[in-house]
Amino acid sequence: MTHRIAIIGASGYTGAELLRLIATHPEMEVAALAANSKVGQQMAQVFPHLRHMDLPPLVTWEEIDFDGIDLCFCALPHKTSQEVISKLPRGLKIVDLSADFRLTDTGAYERWYGNPHAAAEMQQEAVYGLTEFYREEIRAARLVAGTGCNAATGQFALRPLIAGGVIGLDDIILDLKCGVSGAGRSLKENLLHAELSEGTNAYGVGGTHRHLGEFDQEFSKLAGREVRVQFTPHLLPMNRGILATVYVSGDPAAVHAALSEAYAAEPFLQVLPMGEMPSTHHVRGSNFCHVGVSGDRVSGRTIVIAALDNLTKGSSGQAVQNANLMLGVEETAGLMLAPCFP
Amino acid sequence: MTHRIAIIGASGYTGAELLRLIATHPEMEVAALAANSKVGQQMAQVFPHLRHMDLPPLVTWEEIDFDGIDLCFCALPHKTSQEVISKLPRGLKIVDLSADFRLTDTGAYERWYGNPHAAAEMQQEAVYGLTEFYREEIRAARLVAGTGCNAATGQFALRPLIAGGVIGLDDIILDLKCGVSGAGRSLKENLLHAELSEGTNAYGVGGTHRHLGEFDQEFSKLAGREVRVQFTPHLLPMNRGILATVYVSGDPAAVHAALSEAYAAEPFLQVLPMGEMPSTHHVRGSNFCHVGVSGDRVSGRTIVIAALDNLTKGSSGQAVQNANLMLGVEETAGLMLAPCFP
Amino acid sequence: MTHRIAIIGASGYTGAELLRLIATHPEMEVAALAANSKVGQQMAQVFPHLRHMDLPPLVTWEEIDFDGIDLCFCALPHKTSQEVISKLPRGLKIVDLSADFRLTDTGAYERWYGNPHAAAEMQQEAVYGLTEFYREEIRAARLVAGTGCNAATGQFALRPLIAGGVIGLDDIILDLKCGVSGAGRSLKENLLHAELSEGTNAYGVGGTHRHLGEFDQEFSKLAGREVRVQFTPHLLPMNRGILATVYVSGDPAAVHAALSEAYAAEPFLQVLPMGEMPSTHHVRGSNFCHVGVSGDRVSGRTIVIAALDNLTKGSSGQAVQNANLMLGVEETAGLMLAPCFP
Amino acid sequence: MTHRIAIIGASGYTGAELLRLIATHPEMEVAALAANSKVGQQMAQVFPHLRHMDLPPLVTWEEIDFDGIDLCFCALPHKTSQEVISKLPRGLKIVDLSADFRLTDTGAYERWYGNPHAAAEMQQEAVYGLTEFYREEIRAARLVAGTGCNAATGQFALRPLIAGGVIGLDDIILDLKCGVSGAGRSLKENLLHAELSEGTNAYGVGGTHRHLGEFDQEFSKLAGREVRVQFTPHLLPMNRGILATVYVSGDPAAVHAALSEAYAAEPFLQVLPMGEMPSTHHVRGSNFCHVGVSGDRVSGRTIVIAALDNLTKGSSGQAVQNANLMLGVEETAGLMLAPCFP
Repeated sequence: MTHRIAIIGASGYTGAELLRLIATHPEMEVAALAANSKVGQQMAQVFPHLRHMDLPPLVTWEEIDFDGIDLCFCALPHKTSQEVISKLPRGLKIVDLSADFRLTDTGAYERWYGNPHAAAEMQQEAVYGLTEFYREEIRAARLVAGTGCNAATGQFALRPLIAGGVIGLDDIILDLKCGVSGAGRSLKENLLHAELSEGTNAYGVGGTHRHLGEFDQEFSKLAGREVRVQFTPHLLPMNRGILATVYVSGDPAAVHAALSEAYAAEPFLQVLPMGEMPSTHHVRGSNFCHVGVSGDRVSGRTIVIAALDNLTKGSSGQAVQNANLMLGVEETAGLMLAPCFP
Repeated sequence: MTHRIAIIGASGYTGAELLRLIATHPEMEVAALAANSKVGQQMAQVFPHLRHMDLPPLVTWEEIDFDGIDLCFCALPHKTSQEVISKLPRGLKIVDLSADFRLTDTGAYERWYGNPHAAAEMQQEAVYGLTEFYREEIRAARLVAGTGCNAATGQFALRPLIAGGVIGLDDIILDLKCGVSGAGRSLKENLLHAELSEGTNAYGVGGTHRHLGEFDQEFSKLAGREVRVQFTPHLLPMNRGILATVYVSGDPAAVHAALSEAYAAEPFLQVLPMGEMPSTHHVRGSNFCHVGVSGDRVSGRTIVIAALDNLTKGSSGQAVQNANLMLGVEETAGLMLAPCFP
Repeated sequence: MTHRIAIIGASGYTGAELLRLIATHPEMEVAALAANSKVGQQMAQVFPHLRHMDLPPLVTWEEIDFDGIDLCFCALPHKTSQEVISKLPRGLKIVDLSADFRLTDTGAYERWYGNPHAAAEMQQEAVYGLTEFYREEIRAARLVAGTGCNAATGQFALRPLIAGGVIGLDDIILDLKCGVSGAGRSLKENLLHAELSEGTNAYGVGGTHRHLGEFDQEFSKLAGREVRVQFTPHLLPMNRGILATVYVSGDPAAVHAALSEAYAAEPFLQVLPMGEMPSTHHVRGSNFCHVGVSGDRVSGRTIVIAALDNLTKGSSGQAVQNANLMLGVEETAGLMLAPCFP
Repeated sequence: MTHRIAIIGASGYTGAELLRLIATHPEMEVAALAANSKVGQQMAQVFPHLRHMDLPPLVTWEEIDFDGIDLCFCALPHKTSQEVISKLPRGLKIVDLSADFRLTDTGAYERWYGNPHAAAEMQQEAVYGLTEFYREEIRAARLVAGTGCNAATGQFALRPLIAGGVIGLDDIILDLKCGVSGAGRSLKENLLHAELSEGTNAYGVGGTHRHLGEFDQEFSKLAGREVRVQFTPHLLPMNRGILATVYVSGDPAAVHAALSEAYAAEPFLQVLPMGEMPSTHHVRGSNFCHVGVSGDRVSGRTIVIAALDNLTKGSSGQAVQNANLMLGVEETAGLMLAPCFP
């Protein structure tokens, strides 16, 4: 059975990635595409790589007739997203890719994002979209909040360790290396090829990156106490990929065992043999996440490294995975694309 | 119905690309993998990005039991390929990705490749694998010779123009820009990241590149007279993609019409609206080829630009397309993956 | 003796490149820096890589006291440049890096740039800044017009051939491969790392690129008749560098001899041994231009390839070279930096 | 006064970088170049970007007449270096760029490098080449051991903090991001453009990287007790540059003050204003090292980030700086090249 899909915010990278995945999805068809800034254009103009797809023209989201829509992906910027979603039909299944419904606490949202939430009651209703850990809730959900791409990567490395009590909670450090597509299709000097290629730098240093809100919420909930990690993202000259290098106190074997057990049955999470390290090269364009573990010469210290593609497993792939659950489709449908290497 | 596939030479880039495509192909399963230099290894060691696939271990090609094999891809270097293929069972369907069976003339082969052909009778039997122009022959073939990736790109730009008599035959110039994966997984100084990134240079200048053998054979056959093009390839700091900028004498409208007509029903060939130009960005990782046409301010001159992914439409995608025809499978099966952008 | 230099338009890439070169120039010191959009900022904020230099803060150009200035570089966008330069003191030596004074014909300027020239008499006075061919005029000039970077590359390949009568004039084709810094620090989608890296495309196809105005003017003047070349630029995923692949009719040996003779005494122009091809890798960050020549298997056809760094020899290095001549300084002063490889 | 320089091992990247720097050095001239694997070639063949320099042909090191040589750079692989250097004239001033004389302890050398040291007495004589901290010893030295490039970066971030007692010594973590030229001109699969570009991975995870030997030696000496840091290097798709992200316990203001004070008079070390972060983009091709400091939301935690160019400040620039001291030349001579951006 084919499900009719709408995408709001189709002119950004996560919108394009949704379409790339739906292109070969056996049970989804694109019924409506909205992008208010590009109304009237064809997707072939906005994203010529999708030229071969038979897609509806871009309209405003207000023009979409949601009666015939089975599920709507919302790929808008945060703040805009909550405003739009609060006006969509109440019965519509929605997967939101913005930050707007990730934090359940209204105060936390305002602290990290700087504005009061305009749809606080929906914030309560939304299910956090980290599929592997909220599968049943997502299956039953009406509104799923896609996670931050950095937040997803860090949680894949750490959740089973916190839940399993195999690491210390007071000295967790996440050093992330991120590809540029995570910053979106935004016209900023530092995202120009001439400024970004052939070099690297940290950003959001010192605990200011908004994905920390998700780490705090999820890790504290898991641990049953407040957990505050250190998190430093770095911008790398590559388009796709996040590599999270996580430094923890704990026994390497216990850490490896906890991860292996947690992900044993997961189709997209792959724990590498002890001592083997993942690479973003090996997950590019796919919905897979590779996780590696190593001890350190400093006794009692363990390094966990997780790699995924921020546009796929980090956002649009995760969104399709969640949509599959919400629609009663096979969870892996449309998502078994092998990574694109080289 | 699922067809059982063998790949000989599975440890190179075209081997990996075959596996990437077969990973989501609905009617192929990998029954045997050979790579004589890596015997005994798992593909996850050779290509960790294929870790999620359930694949047989690497063996020597001599160890493969071809009785249960429906079709064999051969992704070996030229010269080795002819030696191996000449020893394979006579009834086995084979798609060869090397240069060994592209040229039907034994003398031409020896001139371009420097060694006498070791399987001259099979050279006669082989069908040239440019699917869109040899579809019926390929459907009936036992042995199909995959084209050169540069040769494919140039022919997509030029064949309908030569066949249609809409361009001059004596001043055709192909200036090609090629990604590095076309050079294979070979350890050469100029292919190192430190030497290749952030710059460009021409190679094989002056009419020495071997793909000229294919241009000569195919264009002369089409024209019914000898055609000798100029062809200069350039190595670009990108992994995938070929952009062929072709300079011809002819009327732009007639050129555009000839291409549009030739490719009107083709699933993978897309002729852009007059004056619009393709980009390798927009075909990356896919089996599509985009073709654009423009006139020039110099009257009577036309520019045709074709873009494809050398590993997909230029070799492994083409190979799967041909295999689909040979196996009686839908021609597009497993090949409708959308390009991976950004 | 140290000359006091002003730079107007210091916040763009050519401004930054001027400063990079002046940083180790033995006879220039930076006395004033203007960038109207960044007034009040320090260069360390606009270009942190210049942090170590002791530089004046950014002011508006109107605030500069030109009395103490020996020479002014003007690195503004075209059109703005003519407006500003027409208001500068009449006696001030100026090297303009914009397109505004390259074309001596007012009609040609308006045709290529779309607006009437606002300083037509200065347009007549300006000397075309291709140093190697206008050295004496530049030495005596008050206002020198820096050439287009593509225009410089093509002329280095072709001028001695046109002047020497060794090639045909009616079928010259320039296929250029250009790094992205030539497009400046402009916020455009196609210049983003995510859109530009890992792929290539042509632009300005069909004879619409403005640097054709320079080719037309210079080549026609040299030939004593109208010369109209074909010119197709391509954007490559690299920051610096232009490679011009030029297709001509002519004898390879005569072409090589004409270039070798023309550049025998030139410090920055290097003609490679016959058949050897240049690479933009080998001129990056330097003021050198490498030129290679090859025959083709098609008799009577020759390929000339020229490589330079668009920001250095193609604009700011050329500007410093011209300024050296205008100030009576050694022509190579500050310009012998070796290319930065890898 | 011009000093006559020999380079042994001139065909690698650090050899090329020495020549790039000497090209504009006012008081050095290249008298002899050795590269045993390329004997008889010209540098223009080995490194065409140095084509404009007037250089002696490559010979074996045994052929060099050291009588006329004032100083010899040795840019050989470790192990080979000690064998060659032990046979050079006893009075010859030498700057070694290999790992062979960095560790003063023979046992430590053998532990990290796997072979007994063949010139143990010279190992004792050698001065550790981190200029800013061993300036007087270097001035008087005959043999200086250039530091590891990662080791230099980490020490620039940490030495003043350990010496000043402003950070904890038991939980120091260095997460390094390294460009590929640090791996040298070696033909390895993972250094190919097709494998390295567009992705990242860690290597030497868990405390196995050899530069840890230097950290252990230097930090323990400084602290007067054993210090064992955690150090995880990552390979990034960029040619030059190291970014060290260092996590420490300590007060941010005290850390910033200690670094600012230590480097106040240093020409190449620049401490950024509190909270500002360096980028490898801004030191590329230069001898500068930028250092930034930030507190973290986790109280008592501080992040120090240091950026330098591994080929310049990390090896060949450092070597020239040391040679300047040994020859009685101005320390900054030939080293004030501005970074090459973009």
